[in-house]
Amino acid sequence: MSYSKQSLELHRHARGKIEIRSKVSLKDKEDMSAAYTPGVAAVCTEIAGDKRNSFIMTNRGSQVAIVTDGTAILGLGDLGPEAAMPVMEGKSIIFKEFADIDAIPLCINSTDVDDIVKFCKLIEPSFAGINLEDISSPRCFEIFEQLEKALSIPVFHDDQDGTAIVTLAAIINACRVSERDLGDLHVVVNGAGAAGIAIARLLIHARVKEVVLVDTQGALYDGRPGMNPIKQEIAERSNRMKHKGDLQSVLIGADVFVGVSVGNIVTEAMVAGMNPSPFIFAMANPMPEIMPEAALRAGAGIVGTGRSDMANQVNNALVFPGLFKGLLQTGIRKITPDMKVAVADAIARSIVPTADNLMPTTFDKQVVDNIVKVLAGMSSN
Amino acid sequence: MSYSKQSLELHRHARGKIEIRSKVSLKDKEDMSAAYTPGVAAVCTEIAGDKRNSFIMTNRGSQVAIVTDGTAILGLGDLGPEAAMPVMEGKSIIFKEFADIDAIPLCINSTDVDDIVKFCKLIEPSFAGINLEDISSPRCFEIFEQLEKALSIPVFHDDQDGTAIVTLAAIINACRVSERDLGDLHVVVNGAGAAGIAIARLLIHARVKEVVLVDTQGALYDGRPGMNPIKQEIAERSNRMKHKGDLQSVLIGADVFVGVSVGNIVTEAMVAGMNPSPFIFAMANPMPEIMPEAALRAGAGIVGTGRSDMANQVNNALVFPGLFKGLLQTGIRKITPDMKVAVADAIARSIVPTADNLMPTTFDKQVVDNIVKVLAGMSSN
Repeated sequence: MSYSKQSLELHRHARGKIEIRSKVSLKDKEDMSAAYTPGVAAVCTEIAGDKRNSFIMTNRGSQVAIVTDGTAILGLGDLGPEAAMPVMEGKSIIFKEFADIDAIPLCINSTDVDDIVKFCKLIEPSFAGINLEDISSPRCFEIFEQLEKALSIPVFHDDQDGTAIVTLAAIINACRVSERDLGDLHVVVNGAGAAGIAIARLLIHARVKEVVLVDTQGALYDGRPGMNPIKQEIAERSNRMKHKGDLQSVLIGADVFVGVSVGNIVTEAMVAGMNPSPFIFAMANPMPEIMPEAALRAGAGIVGTGRSDMANQVNNALVFPGLFKGLLQTGIRKITPDMKVAVADAIARSIVPTADNLMPTTFDKQVVDNIVKVLAGMSSN
Repeated sequence: MSYSKQSLELHRHARGKIEIRSKVSLKDKEDMSAAYTPGVAAVCTEIAGDKRNSFIMTNRGSQVAIVTDGTAILGLGDLGPEAAMPVMEGKSIIFKEFADIDAIPLCINSTDVDDIVKFCKLIEPSFAGINLEDISSPRCFEIFEQLEKALSIPVFHDDQDGTAIVTLAAIINACRVSERDLGDLHVVVNGAGAAGIAIARLLIHARVKEVVLVDTQGALYDGRPGMNPIKQEIAERSNRMKHKGDLQSVLIGADVFVGVSVGNIVTEAMVAGMNPSPFIFAMANPMPEIMPEAALRAGAGIVGTGRSDMANQVNNALVFPGLFKGLLQTGIRKITPDMKVAVADAIARSIVPTADNLMPTTFDKQVVDNIVKVLAGMSSN
């Protein structure tokens, strides 16, 4: 049975994937009087006296809002908020399973930047963190920046930084396997949306030698016409050699391909034209930019995809459970670029990598522990 | 140990009362591929094709938002959204325990009518219903009316209609016990906020003979100065004899006292001045308007309070679980006054009442079943 068919049956049968559970007993009047009225009045008063008590006397301390407008669902695009729910419920159960975090999907009915920012401000008192999800570029950048300034709780946009962190982790392990150095790599990133831009920013921060972003108009370079402000900003900081042209020409002489856009666009010839034994991370979903067998045939040294049914899955579910667990435990409110690099490194170090087994799995509890540990170390600095 | 102390310990120990639970297995890559990517894409597409699928392929169909701004928490007043959370989590576990509904507390950071209305419109795609809670009067009336027009899912303001329905149920059973008739009763309601106004509206619809509302300025009557539009509207429809004056004078000759404001304001002399064997529903929390022993000493025929540790608790937890379960099962979007009377009647009929045991308990599963049944009957009409 195909994954699609299995998934449809699973969702119809279970009627969704999450539910609320009570952490306390509610079997008699005594229970009711302590969990609800009249006893609860004392708890309300205690929190009114010091709002920080809401983090320890309600579930707020382990509660994260997953906020989406449904405009960039997986590789499917803008399907609207109702259709986003299955993905958000999926994230919610991953949060619970791997980090014991209670993540509540809130799929909202507006794509307006001000509305989404306002919405997150309104829900702040009920949550310990906000995970933005599947909001299309470039609005996602503006929303994130406004929220990071406005809120007293941490904000994370998984499509940006989750993907960037796990991609860096994969490149770090590819370097370990092939005894190469980040500082020598020439990386081409195909796709200049939320993920591509964030990957480029993080690779630059991690001192990768050269990063070239490519969108449907070809390579981004400083001064290229037709770029939005987000693309202009990254163009100024990347592609120092001012490579121009389409993906095919830009790939010549590159060491690493990272694909976060559409599938089926890299040929064997294009891989063969890269530097020897290149790293190919063909992460488009569900169809990779090039199938792993083809890439290997063309001389790739390391190949990874976004798919759970192929080797070397580069999966941001390796990032967000541990990252939020760390944020909630340490009280860190702003995730710095150094923290992102450290988290990537913590993920990479969770396995002794080989070319065929590059990344830890999400089921390895060590990953979350390592991320939490590294964040705890940085918060006490 | 006092309920307050018990409750503080319970909340500190459990760190709140709710959590998220997964309804599906997430133990290996196969599980992940069906619950999350790549399988979930098929579910998203199915919902994008017909949004009604969100009610059966995600948890939306049993998901209710509990929305509050924390301005009217219990009898404590405006303590803000963080301090509202313990009450909302309490409602959530009651929803789950008695109706298997997943109710998500959303305590929000604005008291502005437009913000709250906008917020509820934004979250509509994620929920099957909205339960407004502890929003102060008169804003709650405007918010409710705007939402009932704007949304395609049902909206319920528990402080209004939950309290009104359970109060009517209590009066119905008091009539059964004492062989009296609703149509002969002269009722005085102390408190003209959300609950008082809604109680008056519902009692009038149920053909109670006379209803007089009293606020801090005395009885409401048509043309009284200093009334907001909501009070003016109910003043025109109640107090047909134009009773004037304070609570003490208005109670003379009344058959029923309903208190939904502050405690300790009814004396034995005031009860003695009412018609013979009056019904006293002293529902202020945590301190009733008059203690039951005192009311009985002064000649009351039936006495009830809002407290779980006293006889004859008049508790709106008897209403909202069954009401929402009925709404979700039937697809009813607008709760008519006739439905409210029918629900009150269904609650009343769930017990053979006596003067000391007037109301069913929330632990009696029959109550929810009876409410669901009566709503199912009305939806097929």
